[in-house]
Amino acid sequence: MKETLSMDELRQQIRANRWTGPTTGVAAGHVQANLVMVPKEVAFDFLLFCTRNPKPCPILDVLEPGQVEPAIAPGADLRTDLPKYRIYRNGVLDAEVGDVVDFFSEDMVSFLLGCSFSFETAMQANGLPVRNIEEKKNVSMYITNRTCRPAGPISAPLVVSMRPLEPAQAVRAVQITTRFHMTHGAPVYLGDSRALGIADLAEPDFGDAVSIRPGEIPVFWACGVTAIMAAVSAKLPLVITHAPGHMFVSDLKDEDLTVL
Amino acid sequence: MKETLSMDELRQQIRANRWTGPTTGVAAGHVQANLVMVPKEVAFDFLLFCTRNPKPCPILDVLEPGQVEPAIAPGADLRTDLPKYRIYRNGVLDAEVGDVVDFFSEDMVSFLLGCSFSFETAMQANGLPVRNIEEKKNVSMYITNRTCRPAGPISAPLVVSMRPLEPAQAVRAVQITTRFHMTHGAPVYLGDSRALGIADLAEPDFGDAVSIRPGEIPVFWACGVTAIMAAVSAKLPLVITHAPGHMFVSDLKDEDLTVL
Repeated sequence: MKETLSMDELRQQIRANRWTGPTTGVAAGHVQANLVMVPKEVAFDFLLFCTRNPKPCPILDVLEPGQVEPAIAPGADLRTDLPKYRIYRNGVLDAEVGDVVDFFSEDMVSFLLGCSFSFETAMQANGLPVRNIEEKKNVSMYITNRTCRPAGPISAPLVVSMRPLEPAQAVRAVQITTRFHMTHGAPVYLGDSRALGIADLAEPDFGDAVSIRPGEIPVFWACGVTAIMAAVSAKLPLVITHAPGHMFVSDLKDEDLTVL
Repeated sequence: MKETLSMDELRQQIRANRWTGPTTGVAAGHVQANLVMVPKEVAFDFLLFCTRNPKPCPILDVLEPGQVEPAIAPGADLRTDLPKYRIYRNGVLDAEVGDVVDFFSEDMVSFLLGCSFSFETAMQANGLPVRNIEEKKNVSMYITNRTCRPAGPISAPLVVSMRPLEPAQAVRAVQITTRFHMTHGAPVYLGDSRALGIADLAEPDFGDAVSIRPGEIPVFWACGVTAIMAAVSAKLPLVITHAPGHMFVSDLKDEDLTVL
């Protein structure tokens, strides 16, 4: 994909099914987002859940019922502009599809949540290793023993992503990712993973295991998969999400979301 | 009021009507909050409005319908623990009351939003003047020509508070208040107030005028009154808010809300 595409042109390529793969590494420097669509009956509860758990569920945009054009990407259509979607019915994964025109309705409310791609780009720009990118793998993700603050029928454990770093690199990573508070921000934990209830780092609950080198410690960030688990846990008749790694590319730049 | 009171004891004094005045300067270092209670039918829209306008409306806590005990102040009761409340009916101020036990119902949803007291304390700790405190006045507040992003029936202009500072002090104030992103954060504007549609700084829309000394410029922060105007503008059958300056004192400390 040529680098000169605008974000709008990129979304049109995706809409026309000329790009159907993951969006990792695509449009570096632009904000990509997790997508969660829920029935409007639970929209207040789900919005409340995200508000109460901003580190795993940082809200970039919420649309009104039936709306599909987000403020952070004028001209876009959330029903067609992601490369791949997942359909959950009653809490069970039912299908992976290329668009959700036949599933979306006036009854659905769309949430766009921050994603770790933003701070990974910043880590790399600062010379820090991002092992999952180096090894061309999906990031390692783990379900922890920490519980998010629930809202109505919506609840979930905190899910974290992990990147191994040397201790001095971990300090720098705290500084760098703190700026990106809308895309998970500073780590939630570092060091001994057993305190998070993670028995074996080599067995992630989602994504792939990555190498941890001698002298490195695991550093854990809150992860957007928390929001997916929360929406799915309520066993709603219909929940629509992005497929892992197949995110929504917005017009925002990563720097637009920094706090400093 | 003796300094050794816990926040819980302070709220009990207020509940027992032994403290009925403004909470300005009370419990310095502890987070005080704006209160807005709206009918649950519009709770999603109001939450969406706050989410879309986080600088004027930073969400500290949202309770589920009918609940009165916030997570940020265990044991508290939002119906009784503020010194003074305002009751609005159909968009019109109807009464000021000492508690809202007779007004609150299972139908109401409570929002607690960040307040500028947190960053004023930090400004003073850094030797910066806070003119409204020096002159024992309410801060100057102005309705601007900027429109918040609406949500359903909820809309409002951006309301700002103003504190005069010398230019070098304004730079330091940007640094200090940036840390307090949950209590309005960095200024939204500084300098020529006509660009905000403010014709005369000596005629604030709310609060009192303060002295602006030679060499000082006005510095403007997003203000929580925006949320009150938004809730009232929808002409709902019932909206309950704190009375100006009579805030809810939480258990949180200002530093708990800093981003760095």
